[in-house]
Amino acid sequence: MRLRHRRSPDHRHESEKPMTLDLAIRGGTVVTAADTMLCDVGIRDGRIVALGEDVGPSARSIDDAGLLVLPGGIDSHVHLDQFQGEGIVMADGFRSGTVSAAAGGNTCVIPFALQRRGESLRAAVEAYHAKAQGEALVDYSFHLIVTDPTPGVLGQELPALVKDGYSSFKVFMTYDDMVLSDRELLDVFAVAKAENALVMVHAEGFDSIRFMADGLEAEGKTAPAFHAAARPETVEREATHRAIALAELVGIPIMVVHVSGRDAIEQIEWARRRGLTVHAETCPQYLVLTADDLDRPGTEGAKFVCSPPPRDAASQAAVWRALAGGAFQTFSSDHCPFRYDDPAGKTGPAARASFRAVPNGIPGVAARLPILFSEGVVKGRITLQDFVALTATNHARLYGLYPRKGSIAIGADADIALWDPARRVTLTQDLMHHGSDYTPYEGLEVTGWPVTTLVRGRVVFDGGRATAEPGHGQFLPRGASGGA
Amino acid sequence: MRLRHRRSPDHRHESEKPMTLDLAIRGGTVVTAADTMLCDVGIRDGRIVALGEDVGPSARSIDDAGLLVLPGGIDSHVHLDQFQGEGIVMADGFRSGTVSAAAGGNTCVIPFALQRRGESLRAAVEAYHAKAQGEALVDYSFHLIVTDPTPGVLGQELPALVKDGYSSFKVFMTYDDMVLSDRELLDVFAVAKAENALVMVHAEGFDSIRFMADGLEAEGKTAPAFHAAARPETVEREATHRAIALAELVGIPIMVVHVSGRDAIEQIEWARRRGLTVHAETCPQYLVLTADDLDRPGTEGAKFVCSPPPRDAASQAAVWRALAGGAFQTFSSDHCPFRYDDPAGKTGPAARASFRAVPNGIPGVAARLPILFSEGVVKGRITLQDFVALTATNHARLYGLYPRKGSIAIGADADIALWDPARRVTLTQDLMHHGSDYTPYEGLEVTGWPVTTLVRGRVVFDGGRATAEPGHGQFLPRGASGGA
Amino acid sequence: MRLRHRRSPDHRHESEKPMTLDLAIRGGTVVTAADTMLCDVGIRDGRIVALGEDVGPSARSIDDAGLLVLPGGIDSHVHLDQFQGEGIVMADGFRSGTVSAAAGGNTCVIPFALQRRGESLRAAVEAYHAKAQGEALVDYSFHLIVTDPTPGVLGQELPALVKDGYSSFKVFMTYDDMVLSDRELLDVFAVAKAENALVMVHAEGFDSIRFMADGLEAEGKTAPAFHAAARPETVEREATHRAIALAELVGIPIMVVHVSGRDAIEQIEWARRRGLTVHAETCPQYLVLTADDLDRPGTEGAKFVCSPPPRDAASQAAVWRALAGGAFQTFSSDHCPFRYDDPAGKTGPAARASFRAVPNGIPGVAARLPILFSEGVVKGRITLQDFVALTATNHARLYGLYPRKGSIAIGADADIALWDPARRVTLTQDLMHHGSDYTPYEGLEVTGWPVTTLVRGRVVFDGGRATAEPGHGQFLPRGASGGA
Amino acid sequence: MRLRHRRSPDHRHESEKPMTLDLAIRGGTVVTAADTMLCDVGIRDGRIVALGEDVGPSARSIDDAGLLVLPGGIDSHVHLDQFQGEGIVMADGFRSGTVSAAAGGNTCVIPFALQRRGESLRAAVEAYHAKAQGEALVDYSFHLIVTDPTPGVLGQELPALVKDGYSSFKVFMTYDDMVLSDRELLDVFAVAKAENALVMVHAEGFDSIRFMADGLEAEGKTAPAFHAAARPETVEREATHRAIALAELVGIPIMVVHVSGRDAIEQIEWARRRGLTVHAETCPQYLVLTADDLDRPGTEGAKFVCSPPPRDAASQAAVWRALAGGAFQTFSSDHCPFRYDDPAGKTGPAARASFRAVPNGIPGVAARLPILFSEGVVKGRITLQDFVALTATNHARLYGLYPRKGSIAIGADADIALWDPARRVTLTQDLMHHGSDYTPYEGLEVTGWPVTTLVRGRVVFDGGRATAEPGHGQFLPRGASGGA
Repeated sequence: MRLRHRRSPDHRHESEKPMTLDLAIRGGTVVTAADTMLCDVGIRDGRIVALGEDVGPSARSIDDAGLLVLPGGIDSHVHLDQFQGEGIVMADGFRSGTVSAAAGGNTCVIPFALQRRGESLRAAVEAYHAKAQGEALVDYSFHLIVTDPTPGVLGQELPALVKDGYSSFKVFMTYDDMVLSDRELLDVFAVAKAENALVMVHAEGFDSIRFMADGLEAEGKTAPAFHAAARPETVEREATHRAIALAELVGIPIMVVHVSGRDAIEQIEWARRRGLTVHAETCPQYLVLTADDLDRPGTEGAKFVCSPPPRDAASQAAVWRALAGGAFQTFSSDHCPFRYDDPAGKTGPAARASFRAVPNGIPGVAARLPILFSEGVVKGRITLQDFVALTATNHARLYGLYPRKGSIAIGADADIALWDPARRVTLTQDLMHHGSDYTPYEGLEVTGWPVTTLVRGRVVFDGGRATAEPGHGQFLPRGASGGA
Repeated sequence: MRLRHRRSPDHRHESEKPMTLDLAIRGGTVVTAADTMLCDVGIRDGRIVALGEDVGPSARSIDDAGLLVLPGGIDSHVHLDQFQGEGIVMADGFRSGTVSAAAGGNTCVIPFALQRRGESLRAAVEAYHAKAQGEALVDYSFHLIVTDPTPGVLGQELPALVKDGYSSFKVFMTYDDMVLSDRELLDVFAVAKAENALVMVHAEGFDSIRFMADGLEAEGKTAPAFHAAARPETVEREATHRAIALAELVGIPIMVVHVSGRDAIEQIEWARRRGLTVHAETCPQYLVLTADDLDRPGTEGAKFVCSPPPRDAASQAAVWRALAGGAFQTFSSDHCPFRYDDPAGKTGPAARASFRAVPNGIPGVAARLPILFSEGVVKGRITLQDFVALTATNHARLYGLYPRKGSIAIGADADIALWDPARRVTLTQDLMHHGSDYTPYEGLEVTGWPVTTLVRGRVVFDGGRATAEPGHGQFLPRGASGGA
Repeated sequence: MRLRHRRSPDHRHESEKPMTLDLAIRGGTVVTAADTMLCDVGIRDGRIVALGEDVGPSARSIDDAGLLVLPGGIDSHVHLDQFQGEGIVMADGFRSGTVSAAAGGNTCVIPFALQRRGESLRAAVEAYHAKAQGEALVDYSFHLIVTDPTPGVLGQELPALVKDGYSSFKVFMTYDDMVLSDRELLDVFAVAKAENALVMVHAEGFDSIRFMADGLEAEGKTAPAFHAAARPETVEREATHRAIALAELVGIPIMVVHVSGRDAIEQIEWARRRGLTVHAETCPQYLVLTADDLDRPGTEGAKFVCSPPPRDAASQAAVWRALAGGAFQTFSSDHCPFRYDDPAGKTGPAARASFRAVPNGIPGVAARLPILFSEGVVKGRITLQDFVALTATNHARLYGLYPRKGSIAIGADADIALWDPARRVTLTQDLMHHGSDYTPYEGLEVTGWPVTTLVRGRVVFDGGRATAEPGHGQFLPRGASGGA
Repeated sequence: MRLRHRRSPDHRHESEKPMTLDLAIRGGTVVTAADTMLCDVGIRDGRIVALGEDVGPSARSIDDAGLLVLPGGIDSHVHLDQFQGEGIVMADGFRSGTVSAAAGGNTCVIPFALQRRGESLRAAVEAYHAKAQGEALVDYSFHLIVTDPTPGVLGQELPALVKDGYSSFKVFMTYDDMVLSDRELLDVFAVAKAENALVMVHAEGFDSIRFMADGLEAEGKTAPAFHAAARPETVEREATHRAIALAELVGIPIMVVHVSGRDAIEQIEWARRRGLTVHAETCPQYLVLTADDLDRPGTEGAKFVCSPPPRDAASQAAVWRALAGGAFQTFSSDHCPFRYDDPAGKTGPAARASFRAVPNGIPGVAARLPILFSEGVVKGRITLQDFVALTATNHARLYGLYPRKGSIAIGADADIALWDPARRVTLTQDLMHHGSDYTPYEGLEVTGWPVTTLVRGRVVFDGGRATAEPGHGQFLPRGASGGA
């Protein structure tokens, strides 16, 4: 058994005169993945140092009677300023992306450092650091996207990067510029095993999609709705099964990201019954959108083009059932924002010609928590503890940020979302604070809203606007995955 | 969404001068179902009122550097002084049983109030209260065993008792004096639905066991080993499926207790994939004993006779897989103690004549936590958080004791086990402090041991002996099940 | 390996002058469970003695160019003149029932000899022989319905009756007058094991149905539609699982009759994957009727009251999938005819008061083959070979009539249905020739029709009318089950 | 409904004087996939024209009282004179291979015409015709192995070849020179759909095997036993799942060949429960060999190197369970013979250096029927009807040879194996008559043996030697698959 803990260096027992707190949050209901308790939170030096019925004097206080005091959301699946190919511009960099995150109650995001083929992975990491430098409002780290697992990448760069705090890799089973062969997947998995890193898998079958899409295009079926037809659940299911089998051969756990429906869930649960460790993530688009949204009139369906595509009501029900039953460890946004009314976005010339060229992704980092809280907790499908685990604690554990992040616990960073469980809000573009010119959740009514976001004890978003300077957010090197 | 919390009536904000603590536990590592944190615990009036790097002055202090501060174990499945039929004497009453519980790091037990056929359920409850009065060292509550669901029981007694804090019923699908017909099960389930009570099911098929046992006896197979042969996994699987189906008809969740192996687990997981709410419990005997133990020489196998019987290595592996994967909500002892070398016990005249008459049950309330900690946490099969959830938090939530019990949280009762994670101990009868004259786990080596047990802030067991008077333990009325 | 065959006593090799045939069927397409072949069929002494491109001279000939020459249907699940309780009259005795069978292309039926509680099983068999004596148009045998498994029945009567040719027992898991306890089921199963008899199980849970029906009646829900609501698939699934488990304990194969939908199929397929031998039967009502039919206006729904009730479109699809995939061994009618407009039938006074009193069963012996041929073979869901196996060969094998019955093979009885595969027919009451005053399949359009039925070489139904005298049908003692 | 039949052109009804038979087989027990009947078989012009108790005069007679008259085996999976790469020589061409087939009771084989990359498929077919011309003792056809699905192959050659009677393609998911990408598989599947051809899939994952084999070689693990370690069941399971998914996308049935164990069976049965049409084949090596055989001392393990490799006892049991339960449609040999003590064979220099270079395949065409008969029918695991279906009838149906081949039926070719069900034989190399210098089944004792083999009415093997000239065997163009 390995205990992990973290304590301030100046800790002393039984001090007669406790140090004054910098900040106390008083009167709220603190929620963790285990507990719900009416208590105050005492903060000093950006960390939580006291929980209690009365935490004593503090330099400043926030009285939040009636609010929930939640661990700030950790969104472990966001894409910021990531290279998307010629002529396409991602709508969020680290500045707007992290403002949007904070607006949605998040205190930490984990975007991706993408290796382009032919590029050094270390160089890619440095490039993404440069993009983030001085821009972030919330804390951040990087997953590594491996697209070119050369001997140098496998043998030197990846092991060194894991040691430097990049302890998770993402691999793709599709996309022209990113797909890895099964052999390459196995080679990356072997490095993950040796270095104790966690692999995230985008599980859709490249060849299957190309085959389906070619067939649809040959029939003139080029509207956004055919994006979903080109990637049926079978395509995701096959890749999920394959990824699990390859991981079984190597002997590693994997994280299957953005699981969309029944078929992939069936594979994941089957694997677990065999005793394999398969983590899984799902996203708001699989709870409140369906393939029908891609079939909205004109080009509007493009607003919902993401991969895997939203499915149908039966798969929504399956995702809820799995969420409630503990089959998913994390709930992320897969925030991948593009502009809609923009030549570099969803309705550019190529995008209008075929669904294949529609920039693939939707924004969601600000909407993630309200959607899950409202549809999940308020509607009684999941508990408050599930909510905290799915949106914060499990992300921190799985991606090596725990115990610094992910909970409201003594010694942890004071990353907190003050949450009004009763506030009724209609989701609109204005509330998202992201770089996209739309939100796919426009008009969705939710109950529950993040009113104030604190990162390391500092209020970074409040009253509908950012209240700290870009650059408050810090880079977080990460340790090994701690399970969930 | 319903928030549940509990706060002392005299709570005030920002008191300049905090009230002095009655007790502080300093320097330990506090563990909850969500978190592990190095911090002090402040206790006042029997409740936890502060967690912090420094909780300030206290009347008394325990310094437990290096120890874990765990929520005291809740054992929601123990039998104490329960009527067993003529000539058989249960080895523990409330006094010795709760001393044994405290010796094993438990702070709360939930034994059963057994209705005998023809008896009023209310009368049964009163009788068990009388047995417990002034005897218990740790807190306790009662599940109701319904053996005679007359119209009066169904229509008046059960609804009234639920309102009085007896919010869980246990029903048996076997045993001459307790078995309910399917119709009776359905009728009890319907009351549970109406009253929002939780039903615990002993799932073994009565007729199947009689058929098997009759056949074995007819062949002269009467040794204790045939107890296991008379109750193969098929018998448990069938009853588990049946109980799930009946609960589905009524529309209630159920708790399947003492799940022993692969077959029953398969049914439970299958039901959940269909969207049914089925809780499940397992016990130490299904992790570290097998049917081979019942086949020990002479009458020694009788020491291991319990129902369902321990299975084989493959089922042990299945139980571990399910424990690690979250398939079980609770881990209990099913403490049901008899003496071995005693005419009223395991080797009485009738018991020697046939396995059918061997008093059915084994002691385990003191061994439960050390076994799961050592075999589970120390061997890396489950996490510390899993351990706490399985032994305390989930019991409290499922049986309506949360948030008063089950966690180390502000406002909760100061029910705590101070745990030495490194102590190596060989389990022996002497360490159990129970009324049985043996332990089925004799000789098992474990790592990790409860060194001190506190109930509502009072040390009740320490240094190998009880340190509070019988009667310190209080009766706990319980509310509705809160899921797990 | 055991070869089974049957040959006429006067067989000689290489006779220079073959004996003249009594009858030759020329120009048709002979179909067996394995083959489809254009050939003549030569018949002598009621048996098939030649198949060939030219079978040589014959006393009489039938030229059936363009027709299929099918093994006559064997309906192994029909109820004729069976006691139904006071005030209810079954609409078919052996005379009308076997005329209806012959009208539908059947040459053999296996009705039931029902033991009433308190009655000797041998006496029951004799009573049913008396009912059949001189009445039957097609051959027949009897399954035994065991309702009172006394020691005498289990120890003497059943073993003796199996030896006398009654090699299959039916047991009921529901119905007031017939339900067996699990223990009784096990005891009957044990006799089946000892005597190598096959047990047919009506798998619906008695207590569950009573509970559901009581609840519905208490709410005033008494219309025929509530018959289906009182017996949801869960009730059938639970009993199916239970029956399989009990059979597993004893170590016998079982036949689950009239499987209605998804849930029971799932259990059966699951059991087979475990290696258990579970045979299964389905019926036309589960292919072309649904629970909506029970909800027809007024009392008309009573016409469709049978058990298990027809389900929904999804279960119909599941039954077809299972039929095509080989999951069912037999397709029977469960012919259980009552009159509709009759005080002793579906709309008697008690029946009008509650669905519980509606005589439970529907006619179908004449409609079975046309429905499966049209919906199955003509629509391409199953092959001609599947059709023959499901309607004749497998019945003969499973119930010990093979090789005398069930195929078109040298040495077999000349039991033949001449079938026009192209004839389009609308099913109507007039075509059924049964004692009911309605058919639940009224108006169903089918393609394919039996034009002539021969039993042991004698044309018994042709041109829409019986062409042999009652009494042509003979009783068939049966041997052990031969699998399917 | 489509009826298929075949009749001689000179057929007339009621001829007063039937034409004399060329040959009659008298006194045997004829077995088909449906029936077992004691009768004579009349043969004229190479076809079966009469079955009867007495088929009348014949020019010649075989009296086989006591023998079974079985449809000659069809082995739809044999490799003859197939290109294997430089330095490796296959041990059987069409002459020795078909003598071995006849020795084992087979009357028809379907070897492969292999397209080499860069080669025209039509040219490949012609090359294999040249190899077979004048050499074959039994009838034969060709499956097409597609290794280079160029536009010309997909667009012109395959459609034309299907029309010419090559109605089945085999595709490989592994092997350097044959593996197709998923996209190529999909493209071939699409042609199969358009042309109504059946695709056979070798389902093992190429990249997975390379990864595993590289790892083993890197550790110096080069002995034959590591062939099995390099291809665990997971590798076959993944490819099986993938092949099924790709076929689902296109909407075609597939045939998964040489299924070796539990994991692949699980996938196939799962797919069928979803309603997909997946045919499956297994082989004797998965019934009577295990991976332990590859670990025999020295190089002897090389005698058992084939792919997928034999597994373990649990997988053998699973294959038997599936065979008995109808999960397999065909039982083939996958005859792929090499010499053992030969530089061009199993112990050549490269083969001695690493398991990867051991010629991959084992002989079995002569042993297939005796092994299944003895282990299956004689030991009571399957019926005689199963045996005939698995070894003859289903092959004919699935691969478009029915009704000409595959049964003993009027109009069918007189392809017959006269089988002594009681003869006890120890399998030895001498009995195999193949080109290999060993048999992997050496020493296996079987009960049941083919004593005489007739192809189109001509005795081609009898008394332990070929009795017809090479060239008696004819090429068979094939029609569309008829299901099984």
